[in-house]
Amino acid sequence: MRTIELKGKDVVLIDQTRLPRELRLIKCKNAEEVARAIERMQVRGAPALAAAAAMALAVTALRSRARTKSQLLQELKRAANRVKRTRLTAVNLFVGLKRTLDAAQAAPSTERARSAVVREARRIAEEDIRVNKKIGENGARLLKSGDVVLTHCNAGALATIDYGTALGVIRAAWRKGKHISVIATETRPLLQGARLTAWELKREGIPVTVITDSMVGDCFRKRMIDSVLVGADRIAANGDTANKIGTYSIAVLAREHRVPFYVVAPTSTIDFSMRSGKEIPIEQRSAEEVAFIGRTRIVPKGVKVLNPAFDVTPARLITAIVTENGIVNPGELKSLSGR
Amino acid sequence: MRTIELKGKDVVLIDQTRLPRELRLIKCKNAEEVARAIERMQVRGAPALAAAAAMALAVTALRSRARTKSQLLQELKRAANRVKRTRLTAVNLFVGLKRTLDAAQAAPSTERARSAVVREARRIAEEDIRVNKKIGENGARLLKSGDVVLTHCNAGALATIDYGTALGVIRAAWRKGKHISVIATETRPLLQGARLTAWELKREGIPVTVITDSMVGDCFRKRMIDSVLVGADRIAANGDTANKIGTYSIAVLAREHRVPFYVVAPTSTIDFSMRSGKEIPIEQRSAEEVAFIGRTRIVPKGVKVLNPAFDVTPARLITAIVTENGIVNPGELKSLSGR
Repeated sequence: MRTIELKGKDVVLIDQTRLPRELRLIKCKNAEEVARAIERMQVRGAPALAAAAAMALAVTALRSRARTKSQLLQELKRAANRVKRTRLTAVNLFVGLKRTLDAAQAAPSTERARSAVVREARRIAEEDIRVNKKIGENGARLLKSGDVVLTHCNAGALATIDYGTALGVIRAAWRKGKHISVIATETRPLLQGARLTAWELKREGIPVTVITDSMVGDCFRKRMIDSVLVGADRIAANGDTANKIGTYSIAVLAREHRVPFYVVAPTSTIDFSMRSGKEIPIEQRSAEEVAFIGRTRIVPKGVKVLNPAFDVTPARLITAIVTENGIVNPGELKSLSGR
Repeated sequence: MRTIELKGKDVVLIDQTRLPRELRLIKCKNAEEVARAIERMQVRGAPALAAAAAMALAVTALRSRARTKSQLLQELKRAANRVKRTRLTAVNLFVGLKRTLDAAQAAPSTERARSAVVREARRIAEEDIRVNKKIGENGARLLKSGDVVLTHCNAGALATIDYGTALGVIRAAWRKGKHISVIATETRPLLQGARLTAWELKREGIPVTVITDSMVGDCFRKRMIDSVLVGADRIAANGDTANKIGTYSIAVLAREHRVPFYVVAPTSTIDFSMRSGKEIPIEQRSAEEVAFIGRTRIVPKGVKVLNPAFDVTPARLITAIVTENGIVNPGELKSLSGR
């Protein structure tokens, strides 16, 4: 089962807001519906957003009645502008849009443009799985049997098309017969760790223990953690990494306890146009996500709440970045751009 | 309004599990009912637990039909043993029991023993408020107008009889006209920060912003925090401090960002019988507190969960301990034991 897929003229995706209670698919007929699914975080995770964005354009192309290529391009650009407004931190979403738009633009005719968009969206999905498996291969050597790995949020199959990035490395090590176990932070406010990471790992049979985000320091202090693996939403040229809020705290605690801290991500997550993490735009989400749990208000009415979706971990706290092209020092990302 | 009070032959307390939705009082007729209220965390906070424990014995004495002092003492000891089994980390609970039992034992007759228990329970409550105000006086000088203070969990009026420890310092500074604002961590799993600290501060008119526990590092990194004030459940002779899970992570992050980290507690929280934090017993609470939010399961069935209620912050990360007897270096607690 894939996290998100192009089926006929629809985008079909696992509704991640309903897990682990219910595994339900939803169908999006057009870019607007895909955009809403992204906003509601029914689909999330940087690599999955690349595919979601591309597929939003693919269904636009498939259902378009445009008679000329320029009409089609106009429709695609309108759809892309809608999707661009959904979430601003994960660079992959913008890469997904650009690749599909470029493919349309390069095509010689309306029909060829239409099929180029669909082909590019499918290609992004196929590449994702291939890249994740390569990342897993590369990263698995960092783990040895008996290791306990801390992960934050969900950088798994559900954050990608399949297999995952940080969880892909764990999966690869596990499949090689290494006995890995995982500590997953619940990841407030939306609990992707408790809900999604625990669900994925349990399905795979990999032992997993859930903790609240506040327990991370205590687990390090008790020497329960051998290494940290997290995903990334955008990596600046200098190695500074934006990832789910809470990642930075974990990186500081890992350093304090001399535990290696790895960022695991496809090279498409590196944004060479940004010199440092300071330039990465950080999405602020609604106060309600923190102030309510389900329908129950937990913060008194009228009290202010912060809800940045991401924080930035400086390169100096990152032991290495694991990509499909190898494991690199965060200060040496330039070496990847040439490949 | 007091957090917990002896009224007639009952213990009346604010049900803290219902805040901020509803301010409701509950009445406990005997030690068993007080013990259950403690277990359910309807009353919590180390100083409040000293009073709750003493009041549990007071209602036992008030309702006892014992004809001899030794009968009464036996009933009181039975009640004390029940209360002892509720929560094991906060030393104050044990101090509260010991003080009331000692008072009964020292009395010359059954009737005098009965009234001695009640008097001692009331004295513990009165002392608590007096001590907290003194702590507030002492600590207020650490804060200057414009400061933003980070606090964790609830070390406020609701964790004591009234006024609070860490929040008492903030209250004292505020009442002196210093413009303080507070960032309160929500404090998973039971959300005492979001529910109780925010409620208390809002009632007092002190500006407060709630964040998830995972946002602490990001707030430090953005230089939003001038100092950290937290309470304590037990302080060992060397200054190591047990407090709500998550405190240790905050202490490491405060040190990383060179922000002072203060523990605020009455001297009765210092346990000179324990040389270091390693000896402090840590309560493990039920997995359900993490796995469910309200009635909604957030961790897949069958997945393991950790739930230590406290962690230990080593003395080296504590800038100073603020007590009613002064502000002391955590390495110099012995200076307080002589007073």
